[in-house]
Amino acid sequence: MEIKVLKNIMHANQKLADENRALFKERKITAVNIMASPGAGKTSVILKVIEHLKNEIGIGVIEGDIASNIDAEKIDKLGIPVVQINTGGGCHLDANMIKTVVPDLGLTENAVLFIENVGNLVCPSSFDLGENIKMVIASVPEGHDKPYKYISMFEGADVIVLNKVDLLPFIDFDKESFKKGIRALNEMAPIFEISCRTGEGISEFIGWIKEKSKAGS
Amino acid sequence: MEIKVLKNIMHANQKLADENRALFKERKITAVNIMASPGAGKTSVILKVIEHLKNEIGIGVIEGDIASNIDAEKIDKLGIPVVQINTGGGCHLDANMIKTVVPDLGLTENAVLFIENVGNLVCPSSFDLGENIKMVIASVPEGHDKPYKYISMFEGADVIVLNKVDLLPFIDFDKESFKKGIRALNEMAPIFEISCRTGEGISEFIGWIKEKSKAGS
Repeated sequence: MEIKVLKNIMHANQKLADENRALFKERKITAVNIMASPGAGKTSVILKVIEHLKNEIGIGVIEGDIASNIDAEKIDKLGIPVVQINTGGGCHLDANMIKTVVPDLGLTENAVLFIENVGNLVCPSSFDLGENIKMVIASVPEGHDKPYKYISMFEGADVIVLNKVDLLPFIDFDKESFKKGIRALNEMAPIFEISCRTGEGISEFIGWIKEKSKAGS
Repeated sequence: MEIKVLKNIMHANQKLADENRALFKERKITAVNIMASPGAGKTSVILKVIEHLKNEIGIGVIEGDIASNIDAEKIDKLGIPVVQINTGGGCHLDANMIKTVVPDLGLTENAVLFIENVGNLVCPSSFDLGENIKMVIASVPEGHDKPYKYISMFEGADVIVLNKVDLLPFIDFDKESFKKGIRALNEMAPIFEISCRTGEGISEFIGWIKEKSKAGS
């Protein structure tokens, strides 16, 4: 019985995710589902992209959080369309939430839509939102063992960002072990090493985002 | 229908959690459910307690992870009884998992049982394991806004540990805002500021653990 219910939920989500994907394709929108642990730097990465690209490409943001609108306020201050989704206790966003709020963003053709998922390295990996790119952000203080523990998150990523590399001198972080863990699961995803704080590695990462937005969804 | 299934799951978990709690009481075991984001330092905190108290009190550890036994190996090297639970994709431990593995630990009377939950600031807060103490570990690099976003985790905590305070000089972390966010939800839980890396604040925290273990469960 429980399995049947779970299947129904997943089936319903998939149907709505496919509808989102078709809409994004029609409008040439590149939708990026950003997933990470709490505090890895999801909002900081979005703010960096806005800082560098807001005069070149259309950008919209969906902020997912259990509670608060702290992150949406930061985006709104920069004059970028943003919608905050509060999930109550829910540990991930789902396709229906995205479908509901996308019309409010007024996205132009070729825009990039950043969807900041709930801070959680587990549950969001199971729910397709209709995105074109699954971006996983890891951060140096979390440690190099995360790919070995949170397998489906790193396995399903289209791009992986290692944030907070400015803290490498102060932390025992084995970069080779981190990359080896990723490559055991995921041979293809590019890995960008950045610091939103110091700007290290940002230009290469921004260049990649720009190329993706040109390609459309 | 979905709500009915959820209620049944929660009811079944509660029954087993109460059985665990009764067992801990009978054996005077203090069970500590440790919850945190991935990489906040759950295992490091346990290793610190072991280092300081292994000759004074009985200690056992249950390690919860989606995959890997990296953490259990670290505990085992110190000669402390440990069981690794791999949840597959599961985003939290539950009372039945704890009930199943506790007999393997051979815990003595007055022992402290550390239960390291899956790294996740959301789901573990909903599942009672029968523990005596809910310990939430936050870490400086995660940022000071976590209590505002992950409400039920901080609301339900019996003790809160702020780890990685050695990184305060390198990060924009507003300690007053962090504490204000906690106190809006939780007036009573003591807050310890520590660094497992430098040892700062550890002795006060260890003293607290020792008092709790004396009191029994």
